[in-house]
Amino acid sequence: MRRYSVEISLREGVEDPEAITVAKNLRTLGFRVSSVATRKVYEFEFEEGEEEARKKVEDIARKILTNPVIHRYEIRELDP
Amino acid sequence: MRRYSVEISLREGVEDPEAITVAKNLRTLGFRVSSVATRKVYEFEFEEGEEEARKKVEDIARKILTNPVIHRYEIRELDP
Repeated sequence: MRRYSVEISLREGVEDPEAITVAKNLRTLGFRVSSVATRKVYEFEFEEGEEEARKKVEDIARKILTNPVIHRYEIRELDP
Repeated sequence: MRRYSVEISLREGVEDPEAITVAKNLRTLGFRVSSVATRKVYEFEFEEGEEEARKKVEDIARKILTNPVIHRYEIRELDP
């Protein structure tokens, strides 16, 4: 079994509405924060061998989970 | 400036509707995956010193961002 994580964040300069909302609500609740950013992480398990599994997670990250105009992503292999 | 991340995941046994949907759609698109899980990461910057900033991020994680019944969270200090 091969495990990978795909961590997706917004590119520099792309507005993060969720982060803006969290920052605003935190300030309302009395928590002063200088900045907030959000990232999403997907974790996948594959039965294939390393090469095939790696190709598949790259395809999934590039073709399905992200929009290259606004997203950056990082793939990490996780312990089995 | 102090930077921290709060990584939030669902507790064992708690259903992850988003992960279920992603897995189903991936299979429809021809990507066979054994399992999918999702995590959310919030990144915060604080002006306070270490002690105060650490206390604040713990309060934010515990009191605001998570529900102890369904969530686990992990706080990490990030490079400035």
